[in-house]
This record gives sequence, C-alpha cells and structure tokens, in this order.
Amino acid sequence: MQTSSDIARDGATGRNASLVGAPEPALAAWIRDARRSVLRQMVELVARPGVVSMAGGLPAPELFPRAELASAYERVLGREVKALQYLPPFMPLKEQIQDLMRARGVVCDLDQIVLTTGAQQALDVLARLLVDRGTTVIAEAQAYTGIHQVVAPRGARIRTVGADLDHGIDPEAVEARLGEGDARMIYTVPEGHNPLGVTLAPERRRRLVEVAARHGVPIVEDDPYGFLAYDGAAQPALAAADEVSEGGGVVYVGSFSKILGPALRLGWMVLPKPLVARASIIKEGMDLECSSLTQRVVSELLADREFFASHLRRLRDTYRERRDAVLGELRQVALEGASWSRPSSGMFVYLRFAPDAVPEGFETRSLLQRALDEEQLAFIPGSAFDCVPGAGGDLGLRLSFSLLEPEALRDAVRRLARSVASHRQALSVADG
Amino acid sequence: MQTSSDIARDGATGRNASLVGAPEPALAAWIRDARRSVLRQMVELVARPGVVSMAGGLPAPELFPRAELASAYERVLGREVKALQYLPPFMPLKEQIQDLMRARGVVCDLDQIVLTTGAQQALDVLARLLVDRGTTVIAEAQAYTGIHQVVAPRGARIRTVGADLDHGIDPEAVEARLGEGDARMIYTVPEGHNPLGVTLAPERRRRLVEVAARHGVPIVEDDPYGFLAYDGAAQPALAAADEVSEGGGVVYVGSFSKILGPALRLGWMVLPKPLVARASIIKEGMDLECSSLTQRVVSELLADREFFASHLRRLRDTYRERRDAVLGELRQVALEGASWSRPSSGMFVYLRFAPDAVPEGFETRSLLQRALDEEQLAFIPGSAFDCVPGAGGDLGLRLSFSLLEPEALRDAVRRLARSVASHRQALSVADG
Repeated sequence: MQTSSDIARDGATGRNASLVGAPEPALAAWIRDARRSVLRQMVELVARPGVVSMAGGLPAPELFPRAELASAYERVLGREVKALQYLPPFMPLKEQIQDLMRARGVVCDLDQIVLTTGAQQALDVLARLLVDRGTTVIAEAQAYTGIHQVVAPRGARIRTVGADLDHGIDPEAVEARLGEGDARMIYTVPEGHNPLGVTLAPERRRRLVEVAARHGVPIVEDDPYGFLAYDGAAQPALAAADEVSEGGGVVYVGSFSKILGPALRLGWMVLPKPLVARASIIKEGMDLECSSLTQRVVSELLADREFFASHLRRLRDTYRERRDAVLGELRQVALEGASWSRPSSGMFVYLRFAPDAVPEGFETRSLLQRALDEEQLAFIPGSAFDCVPGAGGDLGLRLSFSLLEPEALRDAVRRLARSVASHRQALSVADG
Repeated sequence: MQTSSDIARDGATGRNASLVGAPEPALAAWIRDARRSVLRQMVELVARPGVVSMAGGLPAPELFPRAELASAYERVLGREVKALQYLPPFMPLKEQIQDLMRARGVVCDLDQIVLTTGAQQALDVLARLLVDRGTTVIAEAQAYTGIHQVVAPRGARIRTVGADLDHGIDPEAVEARLGEGDARMIYTVPEGHNPLGVTLAPERRRRLVEVAARHGVPIVEDDPYGFLAYDGAAQPALAAADEVSEGGGVVYVGSFSKILGPALRLGWMVLPKPLVARASIIKEGMDLECSSLTQRVVSELLADREFFASHLRRLRDTYRERRDAVLGELRQVALEGASWSRPSSGMFVYLRFAPDAVPEGFETRSLLQRALDEEQLAFIPGSAFDCVPGAGGDLGLRLSFSLLEPEALRDAVRRLARSVASHRQALSVADG
C-alpha cells in the first residue's frame, strides 16, 4: 500500500511519476493536494498486535445478526428470480424506512426517501447537489472526516464553529458564519456526535433549525446513531415535523451500518421534495442503484418486528454498559484539567484538556505515541478530526467504547490516565 | 416520481419551488441543468405490459447463480464473525481478479487493483481523478450514458469521434481531437460496445493505444463484456501488456454485473501505479469501501473454478444463440438502407439507416412510437446515446438480445421490419 508520504511526494509535482516512456497524464487540480484521511492513517497506525484499542469507530461484530441475515439471503435468493437484477427501489423497504423515520419523529412521503450506498454516499450526493467551487460548508471544528472527503472534490471548503461537550454545536456561531458568505450547507451529527460524543441540547436544536431556515441554508443531519440512544428515547431528529414547521430544509441521512452491519452498505436520505429528483439523478450517476438483493434482505430483517426490536434492545444494552464503564472509570481516575462528554448515544467519548491546565508542549498526538509505547493503548487524537489546521483538536482525544468489554474498557482508561501522567511528567522535566 | 418536464421546470429558475416559508437553498451550478438519463426514461417508457422489449441492457435473470450465491452467503456468514464489518480489501478476491485480468491479457500487481461499487463507480472515480472544469473527454458519438453522468458534475464536456459498426472507434479521429485541446480521458468500450455492438478491430486497437500514449491522455477501457465473447476467445484488453508496451496509460474497468449479477454492485479498476493512491482516496470518499461481505461471497464463487468456468460457458452459449437469432432474422427481413453490427461479445446489435435511403422526416424516436403502438415492440433509439445533441443517433437504434429466447427474438425482428415499412409508408404518404 502506498503511504501518505508517497502521496505527498507525487503531490509536489502534480503529475505522476512513471507511465513508462509516455508523457504523464494530467490530474484534476483538487486531487493533486489531496491527502489520505488522517483518521484512516491513524487507525492503521494503531492496529498493532497486543494494543488495547479505543481508536476505531466500528460496531461490535459479536452483535451482527449473521444467522438472521444468512437465512434472509437464502429466502430472497430462493424466491426471487430477479433478486440479482437491476431493479427500481424496493418499495416495502422504503415503507419500513418511513416507519423508522416516524420513530425519529419525522413524517415523510415515500418519494422523499432516496436509498444510498451507506451514509457516506448520501453526503457525497448532497455535496454534488448543494456545493460549488468557492462556497463553504459549516461544521464543528472537529467533525466526522467523511465530510471533508465530499467537500474537497467540489472545490469548496469547511468553515468551523464551536461546539461544547455538554450541549453540542453553537447556533449563535453558526449564525455568525452564515452572515459571512456563501454557505451552502450546515453539517452536523446531532445525536451521539462523532467525534465529540455529545447530543445537541433541545434549546440549541430549535435555534439551529430556525437560524438555518432564516438564511435558507439546509442542515444536513447525519444520524447514524439515532437508534442507539442509551438513556430512554432519543430526541426527535432535527428533520422532525415540529422542528422544521418554521420552514427551512433539513436533509436527514440515515444508515443501517451501525444497527445491522456496515458491509450491507445501505443508507438513506430524507429530502425536501424539491430536491428529490436531482438527488436521484446524482445518485444514479455514482453507482446506478443500491443492491436490489441487499434491499430485499434488509427488508426481510425489518419485517420481523419482534427480532428487530429485540436486536436494537441488545445493541443499546451492550453499548450502554460499555459507555458506563468508561464514564465510571474516568470519574475514578480524575484526569487533571480534562473535561469529557457523557454520550447518550453513539460510540464515542471525547476528552479535552484545558490549555491552562497542561504543561507547555502537551498535545494528544505525542500523548498517543506515549500511550502506544508505554501502555499499548490506542485512541484517536482530536487533531485527526480538525476540519481546518489548528482547529483545536490537539488538546482533545476520542475514545471509542464500542469494541471492548467493560472490564477491558476500565483497564484502558487506567492506561490512559497513566499515559497522561507520564506525558505531563516528561514535559515538566524537559521544561525544568 | 418526478418527470423530466418537472425537472426542466425547476431548472428554469435554478432554485427550488417550495421549502415552505423559507428562502430556497442554492443548488450547485451544474445540477440546475442536469436532466434524467434519457436512456432511463426510455426504459421506463417502454416497460408496458404486453410489450416485446429489446430495450433494456439487462443480463438474463435465469442465468444468475442464485443457489450458489445463497450457499456462499451461508458459508461466509457462518464462518466469519467480522463478515459484516468495515474491513480492508479482501486479498484473496484481488488475487482472483488478478487471474481474471491474466485471462484478458493483462499482467498487473495486486496493488494496481482497486475495488469499486460496480463499474459505474469506477468511471466516477476516474472522472474525479482526471477531469477538471473546462476540460474534455473523448468518446464515440453514441456512447454508454453513464459516462455523461460522471463527466457533467466535473464541469467538463464530451467531444465525439466517429465509430463504424464493423471496426469501432476511429483512432485518426481521436488523434485529431487530441490535437484540439485539453482532453483528459479517452473513454471507450472496446469489446461488445454499448450501444454500437462492435468490437474494436486489432489494427485500430494498436493505433488507438499509440495515439493516446503519444499525447499522454489515458484511455479508460470499460470492459463489462470482456468475458462474454461468443466466437472463440476475446482479443486481449487494451490494457494488455503487449498493447501498452509502447507506454501510455490504459485504465481497465471491470465488473461482475454481467457475469454474476448486477445486485452484487462489485467492479474493479486496474490502474497505472502512480494513480493508485489517489484513486483509493477518491473511492473512500464516495462510500468508504465495497461491501466486505460481498467481496467474500464473490471470492467463494470464483474459488470454485469448475463452477465458474461452466457458468461462463453457459452464459456464452445462451447469449450466442440469442445473438444468432437476431442476426439471422435481420438477414431474412433485409431492411432497406440499414446496416448493423455483428457483435462478437456483449448484448447489443446496433442498426443504422443510411440518410439517403430513408424518406424525409424518418428518425428512430418516432419509429419507436410506431413500433410500440402498432407492434408492441420496444427498442432504444440511438439518440438516447448521443453524447452531444445532433450526434447522429436519430438514424440508429439499439436492439438488446440478452433477455428473450431465440424464437421471441426472431419474432421481434419481424415486428421491427413491419414497423419500419409502416413508418416509411406513412412518411411517404405525408410527403406525397
């Protein structure tokens, strides 16, 4: 596999090194400077044997409904001659998604639902639909890296706004950014934010929707964790009817990756009606259609309501226990100068050090190096999620609690605490 | 579903009609003028009950290996806890694709193979990689419509070159176009062209590769039908080592859609090494990765070499018989002023009327209307494949032979002949 330094080297000339004997092909301008996702590099870097990893954002594989899926594949393939054909969207699945949306407080017509190859493709469709060269997308300073990947090819950029670990994105900062220029989209994960682990507070939700509507800039609500709420029911989605009744467009993005399995590569959007036809054109140009086989198989699973309800309960119970292990141990180890999110949903706790409470030179990328070397512990430094350089992630870190059992998580937090102490001491010694 | 005229109406303002009570969101410039694929519209239009259809470009569903796939899903899901997880590309599948490429005369390393969500996504990746606003892509006047769909969002355009029904794309015309300006890609389907049904002649292949290499413009070789050759082995791919030994870049695009099933949504590219890292970045931004489950399941099927060889033989035998039925009946009905391709591969016969051999006003879109009304016959008019308006498809039509049994195909060709005779007569009467 080529490394990021190889990419940087190629990037310096904007041309390719060696199509034997021939002139080199020109590349599109934007890709000459593109880099591999820092997050993906990190995830590979820390995937060492023996490392206790809180790094990846993966669902727990032991919770995948493999037996139910195998049975569904057998039924669908046995029954439907055309299960492998190019086919129109499978309407029973759309009806089931309509029901799922109702559970998120969203009332929509079937034709507002556009199926996508995972939520990432939905973001790519929306960037093509809304974003032009020179325009901007508004997001938190630390955000899901997939948004960079769809905005960059359009020649657009992200402008950042603050978010705190108790209440989420700051709608007043969003309004200020909206006043600055040509914003085309507000991107956020209101439920169980990746990487911040925060769920947007009720009063901020209403204010965000209102501000966006007034400026006519759609909110893209990325909601992979909306069905993984651990403290009672999740709040209604931003796209819920009562939230958007003041007008304004919220585009909802959903996914089966975290509730059934990423390898299904199936997600969906719920779009305001005027956007549906064009979004469908764009989706078709990307990969023609979502797998008709997968659509039918997922529909089989959702049709068994008893199974699906108990499956969701099992996911919530398991992840709740894991979250509680991390939060409980974080209280025990009492990291000086650190604050952290207490996620009601999703897979991540984000931890931030106050600038005035850490020694000179303290940042979480070198802390990771120390944690790997001394404690065989991996996490993702916040800077891997920085939407623009210097956005502040160097004093943050993301802890994923989805993959480990509670006892392993408590141990991992203790390893983190020892790494932090060791890093502080080393910096103080170097300083003194 | 919104219709094309609805889209045109929205397009007139470049804004959306009705986000209730709110300012309307801005759309990206290119999409304001985008239209639904004429081909897709046609396919829907002609999908009437009782119609004999030679319209769609679909593989024959009775040939899908459903039982083998069901068994492979069961084995993979039963065996692998992480079969549904986000995972790196499955190397055994890449090795099997390396073998498939060898059968197409292409010797490549594993790291040159990038998996994609069908061949359409490969085209989208390549457009992002190579094409900039204001640059051009060279293609036949009538080409696979999926190429438009990936070139338009980049703000680029297609410039057309001639192709004849016996030898394929004209390399001298390509060279003339290359001399005209900022071409970034030459797109073609050298084997069983869609819609032209022609396989590129050996002398033209060498010349095309040489011309492209001299100008440093990569050829994108779209090869969905490379394993469906009906008259002995297919010619080696353009990307074959001996063809490209003079230098120059050919990017090969392959797909499992036509040989296993479209719903697998699995294809691949073989890239010159300097392009691999950036192509991988682009693919990741589109949908993260191809389904790890599908990768393992397809690998199971390919691992059974005896099954796969006999499966390919069955596909070839079936489609050969269907092709022969169409070609035989076309000779029988002897359409005046028409010439047609004799495909050695793929699913399509293209038929062209000589301009001086048809009455004033004759074109194949109104011929289709007559065929539907009088003969319950559907095909796709050539103009649906025109890369630019007026590219000449109005005197052509595409006949698909993949879906019907030989006797139904012979009957369909007789219906076509009667429609043509009726259309000629009507135009002559109107004229006289």
